[in-house]
Parts: sequence; structure tokens; C-alpha cells
Amino acid sequence: MHFLADDLAGLATRYRAALINSLTGFKSANLVGTADAAGNTNLAIMSSAVHLGSHPPLIALVIRPDPVERHTLSNLLASGCYTLNHVQADWLEAAHQTAARYPREQSEFAATGLSEGWWPDFPAPFVREANIRMGLRLREHQELAINGTHLVIGEVEHLELPGDCLREDGSLDLEAAGTIALSGLDSYHATRRLRRLAYAKPDRAAAVLEGAAD
Amino acid sequence: MHFLADDLAGLATRYRAALINSLTGFKSANLVGTADAAGNTNLAIMSSAVHLGSHPPLIALVIRPDPVERHTLSNLLASGCYTLNHVQADWLEAAHQTAARYPREQSEFAATGLSEGWWPDFPAPFVREANIRMGLRLREHQELAINGTHLVIGEVEHLELPGDCLREDGSLDLEAAGTIALSGLDSYHATRRLRRLAYAKPDRAAAVLEGAAD
Repeated sequence: MHFLADDLAGLATRYRAALINSLTGFKSANLVGTADAAGNTNLAIMSSAVHLGSHPPLIALVIRPDPVERHTLSNLLASGCYTLNHVQADWLEAAHQTAARYPREQSEFAATGLSEGWWPDFPAPFVREANIRMGLRLREHQELAINGTHLVIGEVEHLELPGDCLREDGSLDLEAAGTIALSGLDSYHATRRLRRLAYAKPDRAAAVLEGAAD
Repeated sequence: MHFLADDLAGLATRYRAALINSLTGFKSANLVGTADAAGNTNLAIMSSAVHLGSHPPLIALVIRPDPVERHTLSNLLASGCYTLNHVQADWLEAAHQTAARYPREQSEFAATGLSEGWWPDFPAPFVREANIRMGLRLREHQELAINGTHLVIGEVEHLELPGDCLREDGSLDLEAAGTIALSGLDSYHATRRLRRLAYAKPDRAAAVLEGAAD
């Protein structure tokens, strides 16, 4: 099937949203934790985290100005801090449920049964159930003129993870950590490693670094 | 294990790159196709595609100014067009190999054995082997002051996909399409759907829309 720009523009709103949200492929599934100045907490599932750089360690998020994500945005702009927590299969229903439009005064932690954790002097809550969790300090923010979404760039100040998923070369075995993937708006996926490939060089064919997971 | 900002800054460069590139979770695996004014083609694997909006259909890419990705960047800035092609398991070695530092005059299509396809009046090549492929028109570009990476925003003008992976609600069954996921710098993963969950509402628990794949 071949869609042109006009075909896409002519689709029904929800159909188009489901289709276009599927186009980028598999996406990360993270819960973003924030709090307001009074300590009221907020948790929202997002699939837009993207690696920006390693030194300093920077991660970008695209946040929509809609009713669900704007609580996260206003909290992190005020406090300067937020957490990213990898979603796992054993509590994916709770993670998905954070996308519901709860009123501002209701915490998604309480509503979904997930547990708040706090680091000293860091004003955003992490998710205790998440094996991989990070605390980020806001470094840059801009509203994108093209469609009013917000680009938020943060630096990793805290990183907690299970030691047994950290490989000798520094990479993480995300399957061992229980991290899952998302596609489209609502589909959650477990993964199975096919292989790791060695650093690519022009003068040799792709070489296997590590084979399929057991 | 708990890393603080200073711990991360003190890691060896390659170790830190492997670790920080793993933090965002599972990532999309796309080949980005471009051409220069003389028709010389370029292909580069990228894991930074992120959904920006559905109407118009916008996708953002983060592109590094390094030797590999700058050919893509200069081509798409000059032509205004580029393609995104979902990587599949049966040719992932070829996809990974596009990350090697080939000289500008050597096409990664020829070097890896992947096949160029062209749409009329669209000056960027797609990958014939990719079941899901898109043509994007550049809409916005900026260099991010924080670390010199480039944010490239494009609108989907062409979308080709197998009809049997398009569900009735507009979402795509990416597993049926053969799309795979990436983690870290070098790890490729097949996926298995756990479930699709219904649109979340505050007054009801998460409901299953579709169960696990067969």
C-alpha cells in the first residue's frame, strides 16, 4: 500500500494517530516522574526518550502540551528535575494506566499502585518497581514552533540499575533488566536478542560480538 | 548499583558511551536514505527517530555531526528529502554495516548489497528490502547548542507498507512487518507482543484490547 501526503491528511483523526504513531518503529517505554513544589507527585508514560549524547549524558524527551503530559511539563519546568523509569512486563498495566486523565491533585502513583522512591536533595520521585531508573536535571527546554510540542533536554544525575545487567563493556542487557518496548499507542512487547554486532568498519563484513540470548 | 553524575563523568569514553546509549531503553532501528545533487546515494542506520505529531505527520531525528552521519545531514539539508526504512532481521548485518566510515563517494547501498528504490520527483532513495518505508520532506532543522547534535524534523510525504500489517484501527503490526528493535550501540532484538491495552481512563482499570501474538 502506498499513502501520499494527501491520503494521510484525509484519514480519520484516530485512525491517522494510530498509523502515524506506529511509523517510527519500536519505542522505549518510560515512566516520567515529577513533583510540584508542594510535593504532589505525577507519573506519565512516554515513548519519546532519545539519546542525545554521552559526555555529558544527555537525554531528550518530546512532551505534548495535552492534558496528560502538561502536568509533567509544568512540574519539571518548575523543579528542574524529573526521573525516567524503564517499564517492565510485570507492571505494564499500571504503567499504561498513568496515561489516563487524572486531575492534577491526584497522583498517578496512588492511582496505579506504583511506589514512590526519593533520592536526597532530588525533588522528583522515581518508581521503586523499575529496575532501571534515572534522575535528570533539566538543561534545555524549547517549544517547537512547528506543532507546539516541547523538547526537553536533561542530564543524567542519578542512575540506578541491577549490577547483573551491566556488561563488561558498559552496555546494559535490557532483557535481563526486564525492560519492555512499545509500538504505536498501546502495544507492549517483550524482546529476544538476535545478536550484537561488532563496531562496523569499511574493510570487513559485519562480525557477531554476541549471539542470541539463551 | 547507583551512579552519580561524577561517577558517569569519570568512566572511560567507550564504556560510558555503551552505558549511556543503553539508558533510553529499546529504540527504533531505521536506515536513513539520502542522495546528493549528482545522485550519489547514502544510507545510515539511526536509532533516534521520534514521533512528533500526527497531523501533519511529523517525525524528528537526532543526527550527530560525526563522519558517518554528516553525509546524511549534508545531503538532506541540500535536497530537502530523506527516507526512513525499518530494519528487518533478515538483513540486519547489512543495516549495521552502514555505520562504517565509508568515503563520501562510496554508496552504502553498493557496499552492503541493499537495493535502491525511487519515487517519482522525490530525490532520496528508499531501501527496497524494507517492508515499511517512508519519504520525508525536511520541515525544520536546528543545531542544538547544548552539544552540537542536529534536530531534523520532517513531514511524511510517502508511506509504503504491506497491507496485511495494517490493522482496522490504523495501527501497524510491526512484528508482522518484520521490524526489529535496537538497544545500546549494537544489539538487535526481535519482539513478541505481550498485549495491546485499551485507551486509559481514570475511572476504570487497564483493559486488554488484544492479547499476546500467536
